[in-house]
Amino acid sequence: MAIFADEVSVGEEQQQLLAVYRKVRGETEQLAEPLSAEDMQIQSMPDASPTKWHLAHTSWFFETFILNAYLPDYQLFDPHFNHLFNSYYNSLGTPFLRSRRGLVSRPDIGRVYAYRKAVDEGIERLLSEFPGASSLNALIVLGLNHEQQHQELLLTDIKHALSINPMAPAYCDMMPEEETAIVEPLRWLQIPGGCYGIGSEGEDFYFDNEGPAHQQLLQGFCIGSRLVTNGEYLAFIEDGGYQQHRLWLSDGWALVQQREQQQPLYWRETAKGWQQFGLHGLQPLNVAEPVYHLSFYEADAFATWSGKRLPTEFEWEAAACHLRQLDQLATANLLEKQAFKPLAAELGRTQFLGDLWEWTSSAYLPYQGFKAREDAVGEYNGKFMCNQKVLRGGSFATPSGHIRIGYRNFFYPHQAWQFTGIRLAGDSM
Amino acid sequence: MAIFADEVSVGEEQQQLLAVYRKVRGETEQLAEPLSAEDMQIQSMPDASPTKWHLAHTSWFFETFILNAYLPDYQLFDPHFNHLFNSYYNSLGTPFLRSRRGLVSRPDIGRVYAYRKAVDEGIERLLSEFPGASSLNALIVLGLNHEQQHQELLLTDIKHALSINPMAPAYCDMMPEEETAIVEPLRWLQIPGGCYGIGSEGEDFYFDNEGPAHQQLLQGFCIGSRLVTNGEYLAFIEDGGYQQHRLWLSDGWALVQQREQQQPLYWRETAKGWQQFGLHGLQPLNVAEPVYHLSFYEADAFATWSGKRLPTEFEWEAAACHLRQLDQLATANLLEKQAFKPLAAELGRTQFLGDLWEWTSSAYLPYQGFKAREDAVGEYNGKFMCNQKVLRGGSFATPSGHIRIGYRNFFYPHQAWQFTGIRLAGDSM
Amino acid sequence: MAIFADEVSVGEEQQQLLAVYRKVRGETEQLAEPLSAEDMQIQSMPDASPTKWHLAHTSWFFETFILNAYLPDYQLFDPHFNHLFNSYYNSLGTPFLRSRRGLVSRPDIGRVYAYRKAVDEGIERLLSEFPGASSLNALIVLGLNHEQQHQELLLTDIKHALSINPMAPAYCDMMPEEETAIVEPLRWLQIPGGCYGIGSEGEDFYFDNEGPAHQQLLQGFCIGSRLVTNGEYLAFIEDGGYQQHRLWLSDGWALVQQREQQQPLYWRETAKGWQQFGLHGLQPLNVAEPVYHLSFYEADAFATWSGKRLPTEFEWEAAACHLRQLDQLATANLLEKQAFKPLAAELGRTQFLGDLWEWTSSAYLPYQGFKAREDAVGEYNGKFMCNQKVLRGGSFATPSGHIRIGYRNFFYPHQAWQFTGIRLAGDSM
Amino acid sequence: MAIFADEVSVGEEQQQLLAVYRKVRGETEQLAEPLSAEDMQIQSMPDASPTKWHLAHTSWFFETFILNAYLPDYQLFDPHFNHLFNSYYNSLGTPFLRSRRGLVSRPDIGRVYAYRKAVDEGIERLLSEFPGASSLNALIVLGLNHEQQHQELLLTDIKHALSINPMAPAYCDMMPEEETAIVEPLRWLQIPGGCYGIGSEGEDFYFDNEGPAHQQLLQGFCIGSRLVTNGEYLAFIEDGGYQQHRLWLSDGWALVQQREQQQPLYWRETAKGWQQFGLHGLQPLNVAEPVYHLSFYEADAFATWSGKRLPTEFEWEAAACHLRQLDQLATANLLEKQAFKPLAAELGRTQFLGDLWEWTSSAYLPYQGFKAREDAVGEYNGKFMCNQKVLRGGSFATPSGHIRIGYRNFFYPHQAWQFTGIRLAGDSM
Repeated sequence: MAIFADEVSVGEEQQQLLAVYRKVRGETEQLAEPLSAEDMQIQSMPDASPTKWHLAHTSWFFETFILNAYLPDYQLFDPHFNHLFNSYYNSLGTPFLRSRRGLVSRPDIGRVYAYRKAVDEGIERLLSEFPGASSLNALIVLGLNHEQQHQELLLTDIKHALSINPMAPAYCDMMPEEETAIVEPLRWLQIPGGCYGIGSEGEDFYFDNEGPAHQQLLQGFCIGSRLVTNGEYLAFIEDGGYQQHRLWLSDGWALVQQREQQQPLYWRETAKGWQQFGLHGLQPLNVAEPVYHLSFYEADAFATWSGKRLPTEFEWEAAACHLRQLDQLATANLLEKQAFKPLAAELGRTQFLGDLWEWTSSAYLPYQGFKAREDAVGEYNGKFMCNQKVLRGGSFATPSGHIRIGYRNFFYPHQAWQFTGIRLAGDSM
Repeated sequence: MAIFADEVSVGEEQQQLLAVYRKVRGETEQLAEPLSAEDMQIQSMPDASPTKWHLAHTSWFFETFILNAYLPDYQLFDPHFNHLFNSYYNSLGTPFLRSRRGLVSRPDIGRVYAYRKAVDEGIERLLSEFPGASSLNALIVLGLNHEQQHQELLLTDIKHALSINPMAPAYCDMMPEEETAIVEPLRWLQIPGGCYGIGSEGEDFYFDNEGPAHQQLLQGFCIGSRLVTNGEYLAFIEDGGYQQHRLWLSDGWALVQQREQQQPLYWRETAKGWQQFGLHGLQPLNVAEPVYHLSFYEADAFATWSGKRLPTEFEWEAAACHLRQLDQLATANLLEKQAFKPLAAELGRTQFLGDLWEWTSSAYLPYQGFKAREDAVGEYNGKFMCNQKVLRGGSFATPSGHIRIGYRNFFYPHQAWQFTGIRLAGDSM
Repeated sequence: MAIFADEVSVGEEQQQLLAVYRKVRGETEQLAEPLSAEDMQIQSMPDASPTKWHLAHTSWFFETFILNAYLPDYQLFDPHFNHLFNSYYNSLGTPFLRSRRGLVSRPDIGRVYAYRKAVDEGIERLLSEFPGASSLNALIVLGLNHEQQHQELLLTDIKHALSINPMAPAYCDMMPEEETAIVEPLRWLQIPGGCYGIGSEGEDFYFDNEGPAHQQLLQGFCIGSRLVTNGEYLAFIEDGGYQQHRLWLSDGWALVQQREQQQPLYWRETAKGWQQFGLHGLQPLNVAEPVYHLSFYEADAFATWSGKRLPTEFEWEAAACHLRQLDQLATANLLEKQAFKPLAAELGRTQFLGDLWEWTSSAYLPYQGFKAREDAVGEYNGKFMCNQKVLRGGSFATPSGHIRIGYRNFFYPHQAWQFTGIRLAGDSM
Repeated sequence: MAIFADEVSVGEEQQQLLAVYRKVRGETEQLAEPLSAEDMQIQSMPDASPTKWHLAHTSWFFETFILNAYLPDYQLFDPHFNHLFNSYYNSLGTPFLRSRRGLVSRPDIGRVYAYRKAVDEGIERLLSEFPGASSLNALIVLGLNHEQQHQELLLTDIKHALSINPMAPAYCDMMPEEETAIVEPLRWLQIPGGCYGIGSEGEDFYFDNEGPAHQQLLQGFCIGSRLVTNGEYLAFIEDGGYQQHRLWLSDGWALVQQREQQQPLYWRETAKGWQQFGLHGLQPLNVAEPVYHLSFYEADAFATWSGKRLPTEFEWEAAACHLRQLDQLATANLLEKQAFKPLAAELGRTQFLGDLWEWTSSAYLPYQGFKAREDAVGEYNGKFMCNQKVLRGGSFATPSGHIRIGYRNFFYPHQAWQFTGIRLAGDSM
């Protein structure tokens, strides 16, 4: 999150940081507004968490790593909360069992909002009364980036939770205006081989897993000019894509067989044709929009069926830089647009940033020279560098200040409840 | 439930039935009063259901079997509810998956109360505008008994749900006054052998599984004068009861090993000694009170350790009749007392009725000549007559109008979240 | 097993016992003869055991309870065997994990036969050199009955193991001569109500669970004149028996749904019509023969569909005595006939003894006054008296000396790999 | 496998190929010689296969891809075998369920040897009667490399199977002579940064996953001069390595907690100190020998504890080439040595080839430009390129003709039953 445009004095810096803090914290609560106490309580699978938990856990992060460490005489709001709202920091004690987060009816939502308020007051006091050390400010910025990650998770998780309900309730009643412009045709952008700089560096915030910045030697390749659409994916289904073992990785084929899966997670074949459950409830499938909620296995099988492949994360990053995708950030479909869904690519829009997280073929591994921090915050990213795949580019649920070309998101290849999509690539033609 | 003391005219009968209806329905809602929307949402295991579901399901029973069948032009409150709030009546369509009841955030609790109100208005209209057929009245009485069963389940289920919370919240803050009178010593009541009449019959309501009434030939036996206490059970634990395989049925031993169980479900060994989680939160263990939340296996192992055994359901019923236990009904610890826990047996109190459901050694099987009804209501009891054990006598959570000497409750031998206790028996001495 | 017809002197008794011992032990080995070392090694599910294990375990029983206890200076054949071949006697140490019996390749079959030989020599020496105490003789008789139980289990288990093999290998190549006589029509035998003596007693061997003998008060009932046939069961299938939830107990319906079961365990619908896997391999289904390998749930659902019910174990025993079924023992289809399958009932043959074990509706519970022995042998029967159903009458795989009218076999209601069948009963007409 | 040293005529080539064929096939059978029919039958977990299955499956490979495709009028030895002994080639029909391979008692081992003989005769006939097309010869060479892979698997699998047996039987009674020379101290070999050629190419056989050969840009790094020893790993254990969550990847920590693991797979802490189960049975732990049977998680945690890391597969290959490790091939501890265990590193021996497969930090992914074959053989490698880790260098159970510096082996990070070890690496110092 690029917080400060220019050099500022310490006092101004604190004031600006506080303004950003208030903005981010407020945005989280806005996302929860359409939900009832019951909606915020439920957890539909161990991977997902209740809205109430997200609201509390993001506050616990500030309380634990900042208030408790930096604010003299700070009293914990409730000592039980360290156990209840710790996600996975073993250094801070055994976290409450993840799969049972939905069973914690107390504190109720009112008390969780009181918790948020108390933490906010603590941060305000800290920033106004104590001269900010740069390590403190860095932790606050980390906490805000952490909270922004949970803004997106809040949406993926409540979508999954509501999808269990046979009444298919909508999170949001207002559909975005359909942009009826001509859809970008799928073109192949050629990227020449050579050494490319990979990774984030510099003054602005980035996660530790985005560095160290380094060079990668790449062969020439081509990459798709936009995301794959529902219509294109439908052709894969109609061609028997879910029935042809040859298209699938072995683990993916086993999973599809075991789940008896025939279609993406939220697609439903009805008497009225294909429908899709989304944050706007159950809606007819729009063939021009990007296909989403695919596992890595589905993305890979589709690519194989297409005669293409997925890009590596290095190819993706090299292409995004080469094509100057950062210039499109201002108009990208990110959280601020409040579309709450991916949008069909208008002519010329490449969708590298926003719309959907794009599966890459790369395993989530450390860049050479990566070292996790020694303290509890060191558990943030490094310990997950096994068995997961890198995704790039952000989605319609990612806040605009939170995405970068070097940003590395990561999920297990079987997971499909995130806002994930496909961009194709190929060897140089 | 004995509803009408004497012969009454049709109009009066309808009025009396309506009064009972209002009373029972109101009592259910009173039980939910201490709970928040979040508390009423959660489901801590597939065996248990959310409070909100109990509130809705009991209304669904009236709507489905009565309003929809008997009230001309009745419109369903919400067509989705037939799927959502059907428990296990396959004749009425596939019920919503039991293990996911806690994931249904909508309807929220406000809409469920509106549902209850609409159903109540329907019943009021039906009873006031239409001359009651006896079959209709019988169904309403069945519906009320059904609702009373769910009153008890509401309490067992919310207790389990709250027990998951590390803060050990209390359902009820007010402890019953401790009765410090002398506790009944354990005596052995001798019951002679012979033929005993078993089963319910007559005009008053009873469930189909309590009949047909018939004779059983019993050998002489003795039976304990009160329930087994925490103190007595503690001696079993301290004697290594959970470590001695010889005391256990084979399936029970396997379960105890697999669960690594050392104590009853809600006991906790703390720095302050033994504590017990209950509807009043975490409290010190009172050795004079009856031990509860035992599986059948634990009850049986304790009996073996004691050199005794559990009674058969026929022995229990014969003893209860022989000893004229029905006379104690008025003073028994039942739901109306609002103790919300079993109480120590004062001198002379035998606890046959109320306090705790008593495991018998009898398998839950049909009495000879039993026939389930042909219609959907026929699924109420009969299809469960396998793999379960009979419990007798009611508990502190059973409404007084709901218990009879012939009443047969039934649960699986591994289940311990109900309000279950132990009465010992032995062969005639 | 009725071993001695008349009063005999001690020396003669030992000689007669030895002769029986040799006969029973030899019969076990004859059953294993058609099998290869590989056949004898495999275990197809935790419920079943390898042939090699049966051969070793039955010897372990004699070594542990008799040679090691009674023969001075007896040296264990191999100290590892006490762990490896203990079935479930926790008093004798932790048994080797049941589900892994098929993974013990050593001792190989040659060494297991050497073990058998060593144990046999020990027993011969014990019986010839030491004057037999009656407690010793009783243990040997128990050991022989135990071995006879394992003769039947050896056959049920190897049948299951071979059924996994897609080549459907036969245990036995020689089919019994088809008896083409007229098949007994299904008639209803009326048994009057009254008090009936139940249970085994007297000098001849019986298991502890068959006593104490006592009286049961029964209402009048009727009982089928023969076992249910494949043809009758086929009508149930064709009438949608596996699709109608109303016919099934709740636990049975859940199981059938989960297994997606449409037919009995070993039935296979092929292009050539219904076939059945048996000890003779895959054979066309014979509609006149008794249906077998049914779970209790299937037996119960069939009975419900028929408008009948299963008999209680008391009704079965009362009927068998009343109808003087013991007179048919000599001609019953038992192991000595080597049919290795149930046979169609010739005119007048009621099949109470032999052919198939008959599911009763009774739970396996102790008769009043039952006490298990205090020593390790006390684990034989008593600890299993929960969750199981009683079966009566023996099967084609039961040795003739091993069956009695009072004999109580028991299995879990979901189990179908035993030689189980159906006899119908009904209330008195 | 480098089969032909020089240019030869077609006839000579066929003769040489036949000689290699006979040698490889014979070696497989020699590995099975110490085993009984029962040993060869058992399967101790789904990952492992019975010896009998390996003997049959390797023959099925030749029968299916070569005899059936190339030999005119070839009759299948037994049509059932295509189903029974297909491993994972979905293009050839549904393979028999992997987890049930140990339940196939028939064909017995005699018939499997007859199958091998028939296939061998077919190959001999094919090679002598028909002029070898290069595609045919390439398939035979592939079949032989396939068989060599199964030689190693035969040993890993039988070791696991025998380890289940509480008698800890040895596969091989003769221990290799202990080489008591001075052990190589752990030194750090410096490898400069730069572009390195990666991947196999040329005329000699290599698997498709080893290509295309290409350049990788590497930063400078250092790499250990030998494998990590038991003694070094013991220090990790004694320092609480299995109790410190900070050392572990998140998935690894979860696994260790769930398994309650405290030590490597085959280590046993006994009254006589640490012992290790191996192909020579249970033996005292030798601290100078390389530690083996580690999961990737254990290898990674050890490296983290050491302040080092695992090498990438590119670093490993670059180092092996740079250090001219191929020169050590002739003296490496490979299958021909018949040590059946890893050996302590004599002074100067770096163990890059042989002794143990070395976990790298690299995910098993395709090199850019990799394309799997279109036919059934295309399922050999490509479909497994997800969720696995690359191992390099071969083990004491790898035939010498089967290993190359470019060879990429792959297993899941949780798997430890292969002959896996650790070589440390670090960033350039």
